[in-house]
Amino acid sequence: MLYLIGTGLGDERDLTLRAVDILKKCSKVYFEYYTSIYRGDLKKLEMLIDKPIILADRKMIEVESDKILDDAKNKNVALLIMGDIFSATTHSDMVLRAEEKGIQVAVIHNASILTAIGDTGLSLYKFGRTASIPFLTDSWKVDSPYEILRDNKKNGEAHTLFLLDLKVTEKKTMTFNQAIEFLIEIESRKKEGLITNDTLVVGCCGLGFEGLEMFYGKLSDVLKKNSNVFPQCLIIPGKLHFIEEEMLERFKVE
Amino acid sequence: MLYLIGTGLGDERDLTLRAVDILKKCSKVYFEYYTSIYRGDLKKLEMLIDKPIILADRKMIEVESDKILDDAKNKNVALLIMGDIFSATTHSDMVLRAEEKGIQVAVIHNASILTAIGDTGLSLYKFGRTASIPFLTDSWKVDSPYEILRDNKKNGEAHTLFLLDLKVTEKKTMTFNQAIEFLIEIESRKKEGLITNDTLVVGCCGLGFEGLEMFYGKLSDVLKKNSNVFPQCLIIPGKLHFIEEEMLERFKVE
Repeated sequence: MLYLIGTGLGDERDLTLRAVDILKKCSKVYFEYYTSIYRGDLKKLEMLIDKPIILADRKMIEVESDKILDDAKNKNVALLIMGDIFSATTHSDMVLRAEEKGIQVAVIHNASILTAIGDTGLSLYKFGRTASIPFLTDSWKVDSPYEILRDNKKNGEAHTLFLLDLKVTEKKTMTFNQAIEFLIEIESRKKEGLITNDTLVVGCCGLGFEGLEMFYGKLSDVLKKNSNVFPQCLIIPGKLHFIEEEMLERFKVE
Repeated sequence: MLYLIGTGLGDERDLTLRAVDILKKCSKVYFEYYTSIYRGDLKKLEMLIDKPIILADRKMIEVESDKILDDAKNKNVALLIMGDIFSATTHSDMVLRAEEKGIQVAVIHNASILTAIGDTGLSLYKFGRTASIPFLTDSWKVDSPYEILRDNKKNGEAHTLFLLDLKVTEKKTMTFNQAIEFLIEIESRKKEGLITNDTLVVGCCGLGFEGLEMFYGKLSDVLKKNSNVFPQCLIIPGKLHFIEEEMLERFKVE
């Protein structure tokens, strides 16, 4: 049996009771450790579930996952995943390959950045498609975040969430400032007027855990702020309901 | 202090360790009991947190919430909320009014239907705005779910989630079949061709907990299926990646 278990957004106390029960009875516990920044303490987590944790990097998950799956054929094996389980297609792929091998898969959900953005006060129902901003190498350009923003704006002025890249092994995590610069660069080429000094943006730092920081205001004002709290993300709100506006005003910077 | 605590999607074992710690030390615990169907056992929950739970209906949350807030002025008070905390604006409104009264608010996130839909295999990043389908009385028409679907389709062929109404006190919960009928009715008036017998849809029943059922296929085929597992929701997928398609095929009905 393979258990895919969400860690939630905080530390080991943010696991669910069900998750801890399962982790205690598993023979092996892997932790997918490269998709975000874990804010808990691995030692405390190991004490809580009473066994060692095997850290899994991207290669182990995407290329060598047969090892994990072969373990799960005859034993209870858990894979801890930061936040909730599914977002892109990586874990779907794992589910498919597990089932091909006749392995049962169970999913234990937890909190995700995709709903923790509700802390901003923005209605989750009004978010459009989610954009990802990657660290770029050399002259390679990615315009999709700008295009998703444009499409969301057209689509009932939906809000847009930008998830930011990170390279855990290189200890590189993108700041909301870098994300803004990324969008400014595309604007300078596309010139559609989506990104201006007056565009309202929200920089979110450490959502879903203590120490959370948020900065709301005009792009030029938010760009001047900095935070050492990670992970960070960026939101460009669409049309605001007055309660959304009032919630955001609490994080206003000038 | 006011704690807004997500219950997650299952029973009392789906609370986080942090949530249980806090609930144990609170003097009063309210449970917002009308927004979804709680799949846990209230008695077991009371035993777990070692105190009685006060069930709160819509009136108590939206009109008489001053009672809850006044309690929270000098005591630790928790409000349990099904799924995660924020979705629409109800709880934002409560945060604003608490802060006006000088009451500190803390949010404890948990799993939400908005990410549990990842169990379908559909990429969460590719969902557009979320639509809600209400129970209608008499001749009152609501076209917004159809319009959101149309806009999402135009917007990079995004997926659309339809959340379905329920009336806990009347024990009325909408089925995915009723949601499909609702959309067919709008189609019969608008005639934009968004909803046909061949439209691919996913009926989801009891997401995020054991006993989950899913039905994927042509609208006319899915409409023939039934489930007694609740709550239910409906998804109309947009453009599918081959892994999304492969995941959905596991729930195919004909």
